[in-house]
Amino acid sequence: MNSIYKVLKFRSNNSKEVDDQISIEEPLEITIKYKDKENWVENTISITMRTPGDDEDLVRGFLFNERVIEKIDYIESIELAGDPVGQYKLKNKAVVTINNSENIDIDKIKRNFLTNSSCGVCGKTSLDSLEIIKKDKILQSIPKIKYDIIMKSPNMLRQNQSEFSKTGGIHASGLFNVSGEIIAVKEDVGRHNALDKLIGFVLKKELLDNSSQFLTCSGRLNFDLVQKALMANIGVLIGVGAPTSLAIDLANKFDMTLVGFVKEESFNIYSNKERIIIKN
Amino acid sequence: MNSIYKVLKFRSNNSKEVDDQISIEEPLEITIKYKDKENWVENTISITMRTPGDDEDLVRGFLFNERVIEKIDYIESIELAGDPVGQYKLKNKAVVTINNSENIDIDKIKRNFLTNSSCGVCGKTSLDSLEIIKKDKILQSIPKIKYDIIMKSPNMLRQNQSEFSKTGGIHASGLFNVSGEIIAVKEDVGRHNALDKLIGFVLKKELLDNSSQFLTCSGRLNFDLVQKALMANIGVLIGVGAPTSLAIDLANKFDMTLVGFVKEESFNIYSNKERIIIKN
Repeated sequence: MNSIYKVLKFRSNNSKEVDDQISIEEPLEITIKYKDKENWVENTISITMRTPGDDEDLVRGFLFNERVIEKIDYIESIELAGDPVGQYKLKNKAVVTINNSENIDIDKIKRNFLTNSSCGVCGKTSLDSLEIIKKDKILQSIPKIKYDIIMKSPNMLRQNQSEFSKTGGIHASGLFNVSGEIIAVKEDVGRHNALDKLIGFVLKKELLDNSSQFLTCSGRLNFDLVQKALMANIGVLIGVGAPTSLAIDLANKFDMTLVGFVKEESFNIYSNKERIIIKN
Repeated sequence: MNSIYKVLKFRSNNSKEVDDQISIEEPLEITIKYKDKENWVENTISITMRTPGDDEDLVRGFLFNERVIEKIDYIESIELAGDPVGQYKLKNKAVVTINNSENIDIDKIKRNFLTNSSCGVCGKTSLDSLEIIKKDKILQSIPKIKYDIIMKSPNMLRQNQSEFSKTGGIHASGLFNVSGEIIAVKEDVGRHNALDKLIGFVLKKELLDNSSQFLTCSGRLNFDLVQKALMANIGVLIGVGAPTSLAIDLANKFDMTLVGFVKEESFNIYSNKERIIIKN
């Protein structure tokens, strides 16, 4: 499932604003419903950021792969519930009715799955919950960044990764200033961890200066990365890969400039393009 | 942080077993400790799979980016605790002491963060917990797969993705048989969701046949993907990217064949190489 977004495609010879297809990312809350003695009980066991479509397969596979259920036929029904929400008017809650409560280990589920948690990719139910936390918008006063600094940043990031050349399997986040100098780089197998490490480091060292810095990350740009960068009030987030719909929506909502698909000769701007100086 | 693993590197002209550096992936449990009236209270708020190193920065950044704390100086200390565990003898628990319980919103933390959950990338504390769930090893009887089928599978996966060519930003998992035919392909912005969708689909349709099938996934191979494939008793897992240490450890423990860095002319085998027929 994808949606059309306006994108400014910067190419060395030919930059223009075009319609582009973006993969949709939306939360799905998975709840199980079972009879406990005489009463029906419903518990949320997971919230995952997913691309809508095949939701029933996702829920079935999740419950089996995580061994909430031992067998697929313990599922009596999977119903997409709740009011349609968000700009795509989707039902983002799946209610799974278990046919017999003896087929699930309720104590184990309570111990391992019951979630009111908000960690990493999980637990973010909507843009709204973030809006409550984040009261301030991104500064409009941050300096503009020249196109060539942006295109150089992924290579600089890679050159400053100590682990990537050895294993080829690790993500990085780097903080740069508008002159293209690296402030700090951190690595992790998890993109979100690399960014947490970076922010944790620059906060401790008092190196963060939102008025003159931007962030470049390996990989794709999802809700999680944009959310973390926003919480640190970083105004420009650059990624080597594609953004999701929710990443762009968040960036627009909080006045962040989001740049994706950065290569040596090109990049795409998804929001607040006025912070980027491009040659025409 | 990385470690050396034995890898069989298959190249069209020259295949050999070599030592290779692999990025380490280990769980980190983050707990916060604060004084509630007269008593010290300690609560686990997140378990994340991370690359060890910069753990204090990771914890500090996580707490700030997720707004468990509003300011960094609410942290009195971060201590890596617990007995050293696993083959790398690491302390995988971080205890964060908050200097004043008035600086945290305990009700909000209880509501949003307190975790005994096991969803997506989170909540898997160790190989041990999986071992308890998974009693059976992978079948040794699955047919062998020829090297050329393996090298073709990522291209076939991509050709059968409906979304990738449109957005360039979506993962896929595909189930193949040993003749190289595609059984099913599913897509999602989350790698783990694509795999859950696939398994949910083939279970429902009764298409899963562990004695003649293998799995190919876009992206890197981490704990989460291997764990889910193991729970479905899939014997051969192939990825386009790099594996983590924990992915290889899991594959070895449960007799899965793990293949990474698959390109048109080459791939790496990380475990149980006898299931792959390579030309010499």
